[in-house]
Amino acid sequence: MKIGIDLGGTTMSVGVVSDKNEIIAKKEIETICSDGADKIIERMSQLVQQVMNQVDKTQISHIGIGCPGMLDRSAGRVLYSNNLGWENIEISEKIRQIFKIPVYIENDANCAALGEYIVGSGKDVNTMIMITLGTGIGGGIIIDNKLYRGKSGNSNILGHMLMVSDGLLCTCGRKGCWEAYASGSALIRMANQKAEECKESELSKYKELDHSLNGKNIFLAIHNGDKAACQVFEQYIAYVAEGITDIVNIFEPQMIVIGGGISQQGEFMLNPIRQLVEKNVYCGLDAMPIITTSCLGNDAGIIGASCLNEY
Amino acid sequence: MKIGIDLGGTTMSVGVVSDKNEIIAKKEIETICSDGADKIIERMSQLVQQVMNQVDKTQISHIGIGCPGMLDRSAGRVLYSNNLGWENIEISEKIRQIFKIPVYIENDANCAALGEYIVGSGKDVNTMIMITLGTGIGGGIIIDNKLYRGKSGNSNILGHMLMVSDGLLCTCGRKGCWEAYASGSALIRMANQKAEECKESELSKYKELDHSLNGKNIFLAIHNGDKAACQVFEQYIAYVAEGITDIVNIFEPQMIVIGGGISQQGEFMLNPIRQLVEKNVYCGLDAMPIITTSCLGNDAGIIGASCLNEY
Repeated sequence: MKIGIDLGGTTMSVGVVSDKNEIIAKKEIETICSDGADKIIERMSQLVQQVMNQVDKTQISHIGIGCPGMLDRSAGRVLYSNNLGWENIEISEKIRQIFKIPVYIENDANCAALGEYIVGSGKDVNTMIMITLGTGIGGGIIIDNKLYRGKSGNSNILGHMLMVSDGLLCTCGRKGCWEAYASGSALIRMANQKAEECKESELSKYKELDHSLNGKNIFLAIHNGDKAACQVFEQYIAYVAEGITDIVNIFEPQMIVIGGGISQQGEFMLNPIRQLVEKNVYCGLDAMPIITTSCLGNDAGIIGASCLNEY
Repeated sequence: MKIGIDLGGTTMSVGVVSDKNEIIAKKEIETICSDGADKIIERMSQLVQQVMNQVDKTQISHIGIGCPGMLDRSAGRVLYSNNLGWENIEISEKIRQIFKIPVYIENDANCAALGEYIVGSGKDVNTMIMITLGTGIGGGIIIDNKLYRGKSGNSNILGHMLMVSDGLLCTCGRKGCWEAYASGSALIRMANQKAEECKESELSKYKELDHSLNGKNIFLAIHNGDKAACQVFEQYIAYVAEGITDIVNIFEPQMIVIGGGISQQGEFMLNPIRQLVEKNVYCGLDAMPIITTSCLGNDAGIIGASCLNEY
């Protein structure tokens, strides 16, 4: 058995994972970034202790942690994480000292990709790319059954491919990144703008009623056939598909797995994406990967993190 | 010894390559695409015969051919090549029947990348990406000492990453590809437009004098400090750098090698590219690869093709 941790900016989840990569115990709590790194690491340790108490803890071989941001994996440090508000925070050694077992860290998007590759949607392929459409766009690349990491160990910045040269300012400081057009946040921004333009739309009504737009009320308006909402959806899907087309042109993986809240839309989102990618991909149908959604949801990160000793 | 062939839309080059990967005999002739595939393959065979006659031909183990376009490598066929005007042309078997030794084919940009990786600029790295700025933009990806090919064997379509969503129409049919902004042809298009706008510029004078703009007179105007030409150069370099930034964000290779005619500009082009990439790359200086130019020029394709038996 092993421990997998998914440390997010909002929630942290800790699971005990069996040698067959099934989650056998799990707990999650709010991260509360404003409490600072020491407090967060302390709460994480308590959560590990709690799930360990549910099993025979002597059988636990190691702990794997998926963290957002840029890491120094060998030093077990988070170099910089915008989501957590961390800069140069030692994490592995602190956890190791408490539990006296090996601790591994890896980027959270890479952990999610690993989880999907090992036991999720990608379990039958050897080259797979996972993208997570959330606050930002995360990416994880599996090539020939290995996690691809690049020179600094922090590559796979798929969300920061260019979509529009000199376009919208991205949170990373560059202008025109894919993330600025195709993340969940981008969808909400586009919907807000449309609601302002179309005061008679359902979108605009939800904005007033619920005091803000979010994934839930935006997709409610879309599924109700609200014209303004459907236009936003069409434009958003076009942006998502443009980035996926690039990924297919560059990598031609066997599979692309889409994760994040929006992926709950399933075929409703996948069908138009597949059509657009098929239309634009350079090498035609021979190059088309399976395009599907994550099947593990948030568990992918826990399972992937728990397998870091092998990847 | 072995034979390497670089089959281009304009010129075909055939070389005898030693076991140490040095070219020991070489010949080239015009391709003349309008003559059709049979005639081109016939002339290619004659050229192979001529270089073989310069050495002990019994010592030649195999032939490797770099072709533009999409290939079925295992069937030895060019599926489609816009440059050659070929569709579903058998090539390996025809050459094999003449010379009775194994024949390999591979995309020409991949062959150039292989050549640079084996004995050129990339000889000391194991992960390297080569981009060729010519009529289009070619790309070849070496990951962990292997040529990366993707599902259909025709990936690495780096020139067809998006630069501007819904932007300029690319020759591939998609709108806004990097190739439409950063290829040599794009530079010439931009310079022509500028020459029309700035009738007093040196660029405009060269256009009139030489009846057209080309790499040579454009760079003459740039090096002479012509304001209009320098503005074109600055915009062009910005587009080149945007695509390279994407490649660094995605792959973080140890090295990026720039080939094609424009790469003859050397440091004059490399310095501003490096500055722009450094400024925009997501993971900062840790992620920065060596960015350099091809050191084998047109020989890279011949040498790479001659090594296809090993890659």
